[in-house]
Amino acid sequence: MNLPEGWTRNDRPPYLFRRFQFGGYGETRAFLDRLAALSEEMDYYPDISFGTTYANVTVHARNGAAIGTQDLAFARRASELAGAGSEG
Amino acid sequence: MNLPEGWTRNDRPPYLFRRFQFGGYGETRAFLDRLAALSEEMDYYPDISFGTTYANVTVHARNGAAIGTQDLAFARRASELAGAGSEG
Repeated sequence: MNLPEGWTRNDRPPYLFRRFQFGGYGETRAFLDRLAALSEEMDYYPDISFGTTYANVTVHARNGAAIGTQDLAFARRASELAGAGSEG
Repeated sequence: MNLPEGWTRNDRPPYLFRRFQFGGYGETRAFLDRLAALSEEMDYYPDISFGTTYANVTVHARNGAAIGTQDLAFARRASELAGAGSEG
């Protein structure tokens, strides 16, 4: 599975990162709510930092050793959630 | 108005910061939802970073120059929201 668009990959330590940019707080809030639902669905809780128009999402490798298909799958699903509103 | 308990103050640049620690994702999520409602009520949108058991809240000085009573008031209200579940 290759790296979903917009994400960067780090191997030491292993994590995936993407900055999502939005038009305003309402869109950012809607994305964060959808991401929370995805987190609970997939039991996957990334580290997130956000302000009114951005959300930085860091997906640490689930096994702590190397990026795997589950990590990439979560990143792809997160991108799909932003697809509706994201500019970046 | 003095600094609410648990917050640190920075003057250059001017912001207030506090790390809230929680027992699990459910408590963190509940706090973040309450904080979002407070943000909309007070039209105050701090920068937040969170994981499953913590939320770091940074309140930048509203006027960009110096910490004011509004910034301190928001910090106090945020602390009250966490009072119910926070350990730190």
